Amino acid sequence: MFLTRTEYDRGVNTFSPEGRLFQVEYAIEAIKLGSTAIGIKTKDGVVLAVEKRITSPLLEPSSVEKIMEIDEHIGCAMSGLIADARTLVEHARVETQNHRFSYGEPMTVESTTQALCDLALRFGEGDEESMSRPFGVSLLIAGHDENGPSLYYTDPSGTFWQCNAKAIGSGSEGADSSLQEQYNKDLTLQEAETIALSILKQVMEEKVTPNNVDIARVAQTYHLYTPSEVEAVITRL
Amino acid sequence: MFLTRTEYDRGVNTFSPEGRLFQVEYAIEAIKLGSTAIGIKTKDGVVLAVEKRITSPLLEPSSVEKIMEIDEHIGCAMSGLIADARTLVEHARVETQNHRFSYGEPMTVESTTQALCDLALRFGEGDEESMSRPFGVSLLIAGHDENGPSLYYTDPSGTFWQCNAKAIGSGSEGADSSLQEQYNKDLTLQEAETIALSILKQVMEEKVTPNNVDIARVAQTYHLYTPSEVEAVITRL
Amino acid sequence: MFLTRTEYDRGVNTFSPEGRLFQVEYAIEAIKLGSTAIGIKTKDGVVLAVEKRITSPLLEPSSVEKIMEIDEHIGCAMSGLIADARTLVEHARVETQNHRFSYGEPMTVESTTQALCDLALRFGEGDEESMSRPFGVSLLIAGHDENGPSLYYTDPSGTFWQCNAKAIGSGSEGADSSLQEQYNKDLTLQEAETIALSILKQVMEEKVTPNNVDIARVAQTYHLYTPSEVEAVITRL
Amino acid sequence: MFLTRTEYDRGVNTFSPEGRLFQVEYAIEAIKLGSTAIGIKTKDGVVLAVEKRITSPLLEPSSVEKIMEIDEHIGCAMSGLIADARTLVEHARVETQNHRFSYGEPMTVESTTQALCDLALRFGEGDEESMSRPFGVSLLIAGHDENGPSLYYTDPSGTFWQCNAKAIGSGSEGADSSLQEQYNKDLTLQEAETIALSILKQVMEEKVTPNNVDIARVAQTYHLYTPSEVEAVITRL
Amino acid sequence: MFLTRTEYDRGVNTFSPEGRLFQVEYAIEAIKLGSTAIGIKTKDGVVLAVEKRITSPLLEPSSVEKIMEIDEHIGCAMSGLIADARTLVEHARVETQNHRFSYGEPMTVESTTQALCDLALRFGEGDEESMSRPFGVSLLIAGHDENGPSLYYTDPSGTFWQCNAKAIGSGSEGADSSLQEQYNKDLTLQEAETIALSILKQVMEEKVTPNNVDIARVAQTYHLYTPSEVEAVITRL
Amino acid sequence: MFLTRTEYDRGVNTFSPEGRLFQVEYAIEAIKLGSTAIGIKTKDGVVLAVEKRITSPLLEPSSVEKIMEIDEHIGCAMSGLIADARTLVEHARVETQNHRFSYGEPMTVESTTQALCDLALRFGEGDEESMSRPFGVSLLIAGHDENGPSLYYTDPSGTFWQCNAKAIGSGSEGADSSLQEQYNKDLTLQEAETIALSILKQVMEEKVTPNNVDIARVAQTYHLYTPSEVEAVITRL
Amino acid sequence: MFLTRTEYDRGVNTFSPEGRLFQVEYAIEAIKLGSTAIGIKTKDGVVLAVEKRITSPLLEPSSVEKIMEIDEHIGCAMSGLIADARTLVEHARVETQNHRFSYGEPMTVESTTQALCDLALRFGEGDEESMSRPFGVSLLIAGHDENGPSLYYTDPSGTFWQCNAKAIGSGSEGADSSLQEQYNKDLTLQEAETIALSILKQVMEEKVTPNNVDIARVAQTYHLYTPSEVEAVITRL
Repeated sequence: MFLTRTEYDRGVNTFSPEGRLFQVEYAIEAIKLGSTAIGIKTKDGVVLAVEKRITSPLLEPSSVEKIMEIDEHIGCAMSGLIADARTLVEHARVETQNHRFSYGEPMTVESTTQALCDLALRFGEGDEESMSRPFGVSLLIAGHDENGPSLYYTDPSGTFWQCNAKAIGSGSEGADSSLQEQYNKDLTLQEAETIALSILKQVMEEKVTPNNVDIARVAQTYHLYTPSEVEAVITRL
Repeated sequence: MFLTRTEYDRGVNTFSPEGRLFQVEYAIEAIKLGSTAIGIKTKDGVVLAVEKRITSPLLEPSSVEKIMEIDEHIGCAMSGLIADARTLVEHARVETQNHRFSYGEPMTVESTTQALCDLALRFGEGDEESMSRPFGVSLLIAGHDENGPSLYYTDPSGTFWQCNAKAIGSGSEGADSSLQEQYNKDLTLQEAETIALSILKQVMEEKVTPNNVDIARVAQTYHLYTPSEVEAVITRL
Repeated sequence: MFLTRTEYDRGVNTFSPEGRLFQVEYAIEAIKLGSTAIGIKTKDGVVLAVEKRITSPLLEPSSVEKIMEIDEHIGCAMSGLIADARTLVEHARVETQNHRFSYGEPMTVESTTQALCDLALRFGEGDEESMSRPFGVSLLIAGHDENGPSLYYTDPSGTFWQCNAKAIGSGSEGADSSLQEQYNKDLTLQEAETIALSILKQVMEEKVTPNNVDIARVAQTYHLYTPSEVEAVITRL
Repeated sequence: MFLTRTEYDRGVNTFSPEGRLFQVEYAIEAIKLGSTAIGIKTKDGVVLAVEKRITSPLLEPSSVEKIMEIDEHIGCAMSGLIADARTLVEHARVETQNHRFSYGEPMTVESTTQALCDLALRFGEGDEESMSRPFGVSLLIAGHDENGPSLYYTDPSGTFWQCNAKAIGSGSEGADSSLQEQYNKDLTLQEAETIALSILKQVMEEKVTPNNVDIARVAQTYHLYTPSEVEAVITRL
Repeated sequence: MFLTRTEYDRGVNTFSPEGRLFQVEYAIEAIKLGSTAIGIKTKDGVVLAVEKRITSPLLEPSSVEKIMEIDEHIGCAMSGLIADARTLVEHARVETQNHRFSYGEPMTVESTTQALCDLALRFGEGDEESMSRPFGVSLLIAGHDENGPSLYYTDPSGTFWQCNAKAIGSGSEGADSSLQEQYNKDLTLQEAETIALSILKQVMEEKVTPNNVDIARVAQTYHLYTPSEVEAVITRL
Repeated sequence: MFLTRTEYDRGVNTFSPEGRLFQVEYAIEAIKLGSTAIGIKTKDGVVLAVEKRITSPLLEPSSVEKIMEIDEHIGCAMSGLIADARTLVEHARVETQNHRFSYGEPMTVESTTQALCDLALRFGEGDEESMSRPFGVSLLIAGHDENGPSLYYTDPSGTFWQCNAKAIGSGSEGADSSLQEQYNKDLTLQEAETIALSILKQVMEEKVTPNNVDIARVAQTYHLYTPSEVEAVITRL
Repeated sequence: MFLTRTEYDRGVNTFSPEGRLFQVEYAIEAIKLGSTAIGIKTKDGVVLAVEKRITSPLLEPSSVEKIMEIDEHIGCAMSGLIADARTLVEHARVETQNHRFSYGEPMTVESTTQALCDLALRFGEGDEESMSRPFGVSLLIAGHDENGPSLYYTDPSGTFWQCNAKAIGSGSEGADSSLQEQYNKDLTLQEAETIALSILKQVMEEKVTPNNVDIARVAQTYHLYTPSEVEAVITRL
């Protein structure tokens, strides 16, 4: 009935006749081009594991940051446009610090996620902090607060969900299936590490090394694994 | 007489030659893609019931919030873009709190609904709080104030109606017919719960479980049912 | 000489080669889709009568407000986009209250109408209060001030006229003819009620009931008829 | 050499290749759709006469204002979009009052006309008071100041001319010819009234009555004729 | 190589592939539609002469101002859109008054011309005072300051040149040729008057009368000729 | 692969698929339409020479300024849109005066050039001082500061280079070749004058006279040659 | 499935259906047109080497700056639009000076790089400092701080990576391959100089001379090589 889809998708924040927001859907496509990231929640904490695409042997692997600390009790893994993710993370860091300063206690993981998504939702609104397009990034936010460990997944529309386990990025489809098969609520942190890395291994084209994956856990507090700690997990596979 | 509809629908807030606002109509389409929600008013209070689409077994059902508290005497069910709904609900929460602070008494359900719709109506106006497009969400607002229980239905044009019973979302057509057949003014709250859930069951593709539906009532005050309370209603069916 | 009309009507506030403002004309089309409203001025006061489209038996008829009070001596009936009408009425309410506060006396009906039309005229101007498109609504403003009763009719261009009797909305053409036949300056208020409702009856597809029409009068002060008062007029027909 | 004129006329304030401003020309077309107005300057004062289109017998003729007072020594007749004219007149009223307040004397007729045209010229500039399109109205401004009586004619481009006699609106072409034949500098005010009305009569489709014409004079001060005064002029014809 | 010129000329301030600014060129076309104006500098002062198009015998010739005083030592003749010229002249009047106030001496003719052109240059910049399109007017600025008499010519691009003699408007081509033939540095003011008017006479379609031309000189100070002074020059021809 | 170039060049500040900024390239075309200007640096100072296009014998040659003083130790020659150049020069004059006022010493030639280019670079940014399009002008900036004489060349992209000799404008290609042949570091100022003028002579269509060329030198301080000084150089050719 | 790519790439900051940002990709093309630059990190410091395109023998080679100092411990080499690079470098200089002033210690190399990229990322956002298009430049940022020497590479998307060695610009593909072959972690600074220049030599069309290359090192502090130091490296080849 309509000639082409192209008539609707140029307005960054306009509905198509079917009620869709194409710019958000295209931003979600940006994430399908990104490297894979996996998050698994256990009763003791949350494990995050990401693939790092090291396009040249001369690149410093540690400078390819795909897992970042937000506050000492919250970290996140990302897939999509890394520069966009940095803006969101920086925003969340300010929010969590402000919260600590104002209330003398850490911000909950859900409030932090909500603050991130509020910023993401308001693209195209001309606000000082908001972007003129959707943020082209998905995040897996792992945290530990008074309600125990939790794992959130955000997408470019500014929506979020709480999950037990979730994969994002180019290999997310296969990885999500594997997670559903292997996940159970009684996993230990160590089992979660092994599962996350073994699934990542399946979707990566290259051999897994401490250089091309990063692992972090939030078990009370955020900790990014050292190369030797990553090596230890690889060895366990 | 005109080549295509595409000439008119790109200006977010422009009349077509027939006097229609296409962006609002397209936003209404967004709601037809959403999950179904049902509201029933009884003399003792209002019951809200919603379908929750749990796309993965690893998703935490309680994080898929489709019924939210606005104030202790008002709650709402939603269908459409959840991130948009969160913005409207957050706005309404601030308005009701401001009202309590300024006047020392709760805001009426109609004033709260009007405040929500004022924000929804002003899309495309470049205000600080307003969106650059219509809000892609419909709400069923249930409340209890000095006039007793009441149920309002809002759409993306910023219009609202008071109803005895109403369904929104992808299954709303069938659900509305069933409501007209089964509704009467003397329903008890318990009968309303049973009717709402039995109708939801008809329009859902999956088996109803405490994981994929939420129920809430506003009988004087807002209460979201616990999984076991939902289970009890399911058992009654 | 010009290919299509589509070249001109997208700029919300742009003249066509023939000197027409299409967006205003399209907004007037929006009103032709609206329900019918009728106003009749008598020497004792003004009567307003409107059709209410109750799309579902579960809708609360009293929440479909098509006649609203502006100040205690002014009321209005509307046809077109109800959410737009609410914005205009709210603006008029603030203006009349400010006037009472500043001057210690009620605002005249003409000044109130002028204030409404000033806002309507400035669509597309980027003012804080104005809309980015014409208001898609016509109003019949009935009032009683130091000059006695008066009835004004406004359209989306921000123009207004004073009338003895006027119909707006989808049935306005037939209703206006009937009004011209039946109107005379010596009508009593009761005769005006009967004429208004009998004409409304002709243009409505459904049977007239206290649920699907509203009647109000401004005889010194605004009064919206109760269902039983409406019932009494129906009975007189 | 150029495909269609449509490429140029959409920018409200853009030159065409031939150096024309189409939006202004289209606004001038709006005036050709308007009712006819006539002004005649005599040594004793200025006479204004306008046709009023009473589209319905139920319309209150006195509410169709096509001649308005600006200050006690200045009045104007208008043709085109009445709501636009009201904005210009309101602006002129504020200017003349400010002038009286600041300088303790009335504003001259030329300065008042210049102030009106300054506003008209700045359409499309995004100023607070200016319109986003040309004002679709022409005015005949009649006044009396220290230089005696004067008559000005303004068009939508913000240009003005001083005239001895002038007609605007749909019948202006024929009326202007008649004015040139019948005008001379020694006309009395009464002769000017008779000429104005007789010419108006020629261009009007309906019979002239006190209901469908308005007459005003500025002989030192502005005076709008009462229906019986108009009747007297009609009788003289 | 490019389809049509129409692709470039709509952006008011955009280069075409050949490095041209079409909106400025189209504004220059507006001037070619204007009435002719001529300026001649002599050692004793500068003479300005303009054609006035009196479209109707009922128009007051003195109200068609095509020569205006800027300050007591500066005047200007104009061709093109008169309302635009008024804005520029008003701007120059404020600038010269400010200069007198700040420095206690008259502004030089060159500085005044530069101030006018600064405003003309900044069209399309969104400044408070600037226009959204080029000013569609050319000016001949005649003045007398500490450097003696001078004549400047400005165009819509905001560029200016100093000249001994110059013609603008629809007859400028022929008039400029005649000026080159007849001009010499030793002309008296009276000879300049005669030359200016005789050339104007050649390019005008109508007979020259005191009603349809204006003459002014700046010989130390600005002086607009009275009708009898104009008559005297006509007689000398 | 792409239909036409026209798709990219309308956004004033947008990359084409090949990574080009067309509006800047088109502005550079504007300069190729301009008159030729030449600059030569010697160990004793810098010489600037420009062609002046005197389109009419009635034009005052001295008012066609193509060489301007920025500060007493800096001058510049220009080619392209003269009104644009005036804006840049005025900006540079303010900057150099501010520098003298703040630091009590002249601004260096490089800093002055950088300040000019900062303004040129920011076209299309909506700043108060910046233009909405690139400045259509190239400058040869000649100066003398603590590092001795220097010559800079700027283009519309806001880039600048230091040169020993450079030609800009319509004859720049041929002139640059001649400069490369004739330039050496030991030229005296007088030799540079002769070379600059002899090259200008080759690219000009008309005979060289003191009326249609300007020469300036910055040997410690800026000096624009008088007509007799220019005559002397012409004689030496 | 889509007609042409041209539909998406005009919005400066809009996703294509495949999730790509074309304006960023086109800006990256701008860099492929730029001259080649090479950076090599050793344990003792970082070496930068760039090709300078001297388009005319009359150009002052030292004024073609492609390596610039940011702070005394940070320098950068650039490829692409030099005027854009100057804006970024100026921004970084202010940031590093502010940091020294606020904290009394030098800013780290990573923080400086992050500050640069924050500015680059926000193109199209309408901020005061940001550009309306992506910055068309890549930088190699060499520095030395408390973590020892480091080398960063930035692209127009605002993303950065830490590298051991990297080439940018038109010859980057071949140069990167050579770097991978020849790089090892134990290179001395002198070996790095030789490798950088020998690779640059391969990708340059002209003979390498002190005029058309620049070399700098950051070994604790930034040092740009003098022509004779460059000559010495050339001799070693």
